[in-house]
Amino acid sequence: MEEKRVLRVKKEIMAENVRDANAFRLDREKEGCLFVDVMASPGAGKTSLLIALIERLRKSAKLRSELSPEIGVIEADLESDVDSLKMKKAGISSVEINTKGICHVDMDMVKRGFDAFGGEPFNYVFLENIGNLICPAEFDTGAHLRVMLLSVPEGYDKVYKYPPMFAIADALIVTKSDYLPLNEDFEMGKLMEAARVLNPSLNIFVSSARTGEGISEIAAWIEERRQLLLRHTSRQQ
Amino acid sequence: MEEKRVLRVKKEIMAENVRDANAFRLDREKEGCLFVDVMASPGAGKTSLLIALIERLRKSAKLRSELSPEIGVIEADLESDVDSLKMKKAGISSVEINTKGICHVDMDMVKRGFDAFGGEPFNYVFLENIGNLICPAEFDTGAHLRVMLLSVPEGYDKVYKYPPMFAIADALIVTKSDYLPLNEDFEMGKLMEAARVLNPSLNIFVSSARTGEGISEIAAWIEERRQLLLRHTSRQQ
Repeated sequence: MEEKRVLRVKKEIMAENVRDANAFRLDREKEGCLFVDVMASPGAGKTSLLIALIERLRKSAKLRSELSPEIGVIEADLESDVDSLKMKKAGISSVEINTKGICHVDMDMVKRGFDAFGGEPFNYVFLENIGNLICPAEFDTGAHLRVMLLSVPEGYDKVYKYPPMFAIADALIVTKSDYLPLNEDFEMGKLMEAARVLNPSLNIFVSSARTGEGISEIAAWIEERRQLLLRHTSRQQ
Repeated sequence: MEEKRVLRVKKEIMAENVRDANAFRLDREKEGCLFVDVMASPGAGKTSLLIALIERLRKSAKLRSELSPEIGVIEADLESDVDSLKMKKAGISSVEINTKGICHVDMDMVKRGFDAFGGEPFNYVFLENIGNLICPAEFDTGAHLRVMLLSVPEGYDKVYKYPPMFAIADALIVTKSDYLPLNEDFEMGKLMEAARVLNPSLNIFVSSARTGEGISEIAAWIEERRQLLLRHTSRQQ
């Protein structure tokens, strides 16, 4: 009986989180801001990929003689502000939220993080989610795009062991491709095949923040998704 | 009010888990079986380390002209039996438990896994916990030893971001040390220092399943811990 009640209240909390997420998503959409949730295991290279990606987004705007895009990063960790400091060092506007032991990020935390920017207008906001390949898949963070990273040293077989994250992601970014020569047992073909069985519309990129492989392709995809968002918003108004 | 009730019932469930864990621990102790919980992020190298470690435990028994130790491995994943098959291929008795989306292993799962061995007597049982650096730290699995792995490609700064696991572990095993030349920013000294602040009695090993570094030291420590368990049991009887 008690366990049933726990389940019911959990469902209510989850439903409230989804309502908050939908409202947040719509607010960002109205502002022309694409919100991207980046999820992965600890140490998969989320921070390094984001720094490389943001540099590329700025560079490609410059090449098109456009204004540099306004970009913010919300960093989430159990503790510490290590990643937020790294972002600031790279010249990127960033705030840190600490979940204090909780294994996922919920809408209360997202809103608190976003409010900490103090009303700065953004074209892109990235959430570097907590390092966890399991729990964040269950929680809507109000993002327009959900991206998951899998690093080469982790091994391709994670697709069999942790299917939910692969099933809900809009894109899978394989990171640390410069480690491929050291990981001959990393079967890229099997990974892609199994990921597409779980999620037929999954976008897959292979990248390395070190060598720059794949970064411009990911940036182009993100830019395209923002353009789609802007067109969608203008049709609504 | 509802959330408070959820918290209360959660506490009751956790307390029941601890009671079950204590009973399980004592039962294994009476049988002379050391039960070791191995925790880490996905892809930190739990399976490879366990295979290397078990080979070493067998070899060192042989060198002492003792009977080969009886060893079982309980593999835990959200889905699949990839790791259990790897163990069996390496000639190791193994069962697989699938948590079906749940982010940690609880005593019901441990007992189900252990029962699946069908009463085989063991000197050592290892639980390869689910790949998650956060949630398993909170759940007692009835183990005598809790060991955490951190792989070099993950980065040393995980000690700042995910402190609970470091705080509760009996040993930290740094894995994939053969990647150190590729990761010049991996600061082993800072990792050890920060880990010992969180946990002054932490045993720290540096290892590579590929090169064999550290494996015999870990095996010797595990053997010693079993001897301590046997002495403790004989004193009790």
